[in-house]
Amino acid sequence: MTRTDLTAALDIGGTKIAAALVDREGRVVLRARRPTPAGQDGERVVGAVHAALGELAARPEWERVGALGIGSAGPVDASAGTVSPVNIPGWRDFPLVERVREVVGARPVRLIGDGVAVAAAEHWQGAARGYDDALCMVVSTGVGGGLVLGGRLHAGPSGNAGHIGHISVDFDGELCPCGGRGCVERIASGPHIASRALARGWRPGPDGDTSAAAVAASARAGDPVAGAAFVRAGRALAAGIAATATLTEVRIAVIGGGVAAAGEVLFDPLRRALDEYATLAFVRGLTVVPARTGADAGLIGAAAAVLRG
Amino acid sequence: MTRTDLTAALDIGGTKIAAALVDREGRVVLRARRPTPAGQDGERVVGAVHAALGELAARPEWERVGALGIGSAGPVDASAGTVSPVNIPGWRDFPLVERVREVVGARPVRLIGDGVAVAAAEHWQGAARGYDDALCMVVSTGVGGGLVLGGRLHAGPSGNAGHIGHISVDFDGELCPCGGRGCVERIASGPHIASRALARGWRPGPDGDTSAAAVAASARAGDPVAGAAFVRAGRALAAGIAATATLTEVRIAVIGGGVAAAGEVLFDPLRRALDEYATLAFVRGLTVVPARTGADAGLIGAAAAVLRG
Repeated sequence: MTRTDLTAALDIGGTKIAAALVDREGRVVLRARRPTPAGQDGERVVGAVHAALGELAARPEWERVGALGIGSAGPVDASAGTVSPVNIPGWRDFPLVERVREVVGARPVRLIGDGVAVAAAEHWQGAARGYDDALCMVVSTGVGGGLVLGGRLHAGPSGNAGHIGHISVDFDGELCPCGGRGCVERIASGPHIASRALARGWRPGPDGDTSAAAVAASARAGDPVAGAAFVRAGRALAAGIAATATLTEVRIAVIGGGVAAAGEVLFDPLRRALDEYATLAFVRGLTVVPARTGADAGLIGAAAAVLRG
Repeated sequence: MTRTDLTAALDIGGTKIAAALVDREGRVVLRARRPTPAGQDGERVVGAVHAALGELAARPEWERVGALGIGSAGPVDASAGTVSPVNIPGWRDFPLVERVREVVGARPVRLIGDGVAVAAAEHWQGAARGYDDALCMVVSTGVGGGLVLGGRLHAGPSGNAGHIGHISVDFDGELCPCGGRGCVERIASGPHIASRALARGWRPGPDGDTSAAAVAASARAGDPVAGAAFVRAGRALAAGIAATATLTEVRIAVIGGGVAAAGEVLFDPLRRALDEYATLAFVRGLTVVPARTGADAGLIGAAAAVLRG
C-alpha cells in the first residue's frame, strides 16, 4: 500500500483557482493555478478546476494523495456538496464535490467556505496557533471569517460558520446586498470604507486611486475624513468581534485581507472600540492581531480541514 | 460499590436557590429550596446553598449521587470555579465550587451559567431535542442564552457562551449597564419593553401594572404603542438570533422566560424580522419556538451538563 502522506487542496475564488499538494507539516510541495473564467458558464469554470487538479494528478506524487480539501468562495453547502459563489454566477448549487471525483476518484473530499479555510490555516500555522477558541477574519472586498472552538475547526453543517461579514451591528442601518441591514461588511469592507470617505469629502491624489488602500494612506498622512472612515469600520468590526466572543468565547481575533493591510489606521480604532463593546468579564482583554499566513492560506487551510478535522 | 445513578443539581438565581437530585431520565426525584439572601454578605448566601444541598445530603438517596451540576446567574468563571452574579452583590469572584465541596466532597462538580443550563435542559427534554445546533434563550428581566453545537452543549471555557443578551445589534445605540451599546437586552428585556411603551405614551390600566406582561395585554387588545414596543423587541431579538445563526449555524432558536410568555405579540414580529436579517442560504428558514421546559429548566440543565457533557 502506498503511503498517503500528501493532501490535495483546492482554493476557489472569483479571480483564480489554485490547487496544491500539501504535506503533513503544511508545506506546499506542488502547485497549479488557473484564472477563474468567472463570467462564463459553469462547465467552463469546472473545466479550469479539472485542469488545475489534472496538472497535479499527472505527477508521480499524486499517488501519495489521501484526500482532497476544498475551500471555496461562498456560500457553500457542505452537506449537499454544492457551491454557489457570489462572484461565479455560472455556479449555483453546483455539484462541485461530485465533479471533482472525475480527478480524485473515491478519495475523501471535504468542502468548506473560504473564510473557514483561512481560520484552519491560521490555527495550524498562523497567529491563532495555540488558541483553542479563535475567530479568523478576512477584511477585503468582502468580509468573511471562520471559527476554531474547543481546539477544533467549527465549520458548521453547511461549512459556512463564522461568517461575521453578514451579522448585523446596526439593525436599523442601511440595506446590505445580502438582504439584511447594517451588516459588518456593509460598513467595514474596502469598497464601503472608500465610498464613505468619498461621500464625506475625501478626495484621491493625482493618480485618482479611490481604493481603501488610498484612503488608508491619506489617513496615515493625517486626513481626518479618511481617518474617520477607518474609525467607523473599526467600530463595526469591534462590535462584530465582541458579539462573536460573547456568543462563542473566542479569545483572539485574527484579521487578514487587503483592508487589514492598512495596519494601525484600522487596528488602533478597532482595539479602542473593542474595549467599549467587549465588556463582560469573559470577553474582556480579547487579543486582536493581523493574520500571518499569506497567499497560500486558502490552500493550507483546505488541507488542514482534512488533516486536522 | 454503590450505584451512582443520581446527579445533584443547583440552580442559583437572584431570588431563590433550588437544589435537586435528578435521575438519568431527567426526572427530579428530590428537591430543596431556599430564598436567596441576595442583599446580604457572601457567607449568608453560601449558607443558603449549604442548607438546600444539606437537606438533600441528609437523605438516603444522597449516596447514589455521582456528581454535582451548578447553573448559576452570571457571569460565572468555570475555569476558576467562581461566580459573580450581577444580582448577588455579596458574591464577587466567589469560590462557589470550592465551597460546595463541604457538602459534595470529592465528587466531580461542573459549573455553567444559567442560560447555558437552560440550553442543556431544552436540548435534553424540550423544544431543541433532536437538534444538533441550537440557540436557547431566556427573555425576561434580562436576556440570556446558551448554545448546542455539533450535538453537544457549548458552554465555552468560562461557562458563559451563548450570552446573546449582550451582543450589540445597534452599535451607535444607547448605553447598556454592561458598558456596551445597543445590546439585545437593552432593547428586548421586559423592563426595556415597558419603559419604551411608557415613554411613547402607553398608559397602564386601573391596576397601575406597568410590567411587560401588561404591555403585552394592551398589544393583544390592539394598542398600537404597546404593539410597537414588542415589534422593536422582536426586531432586536431577530437580529441577534440571525447573527448567532450566521456565526454558528444553529438551526433553531428556542425562547423562554417571562417576556416570551407574551406569545404571538412577540413571536409574530420576531419571525417576520428574521426573514429580513437571516438572509444567507445557510441561515434562512430558521425555526423559532417557545421553550418547553418549565420552572425546573435550570435544575434539569445543570444535571444535563454533567450527564451529557
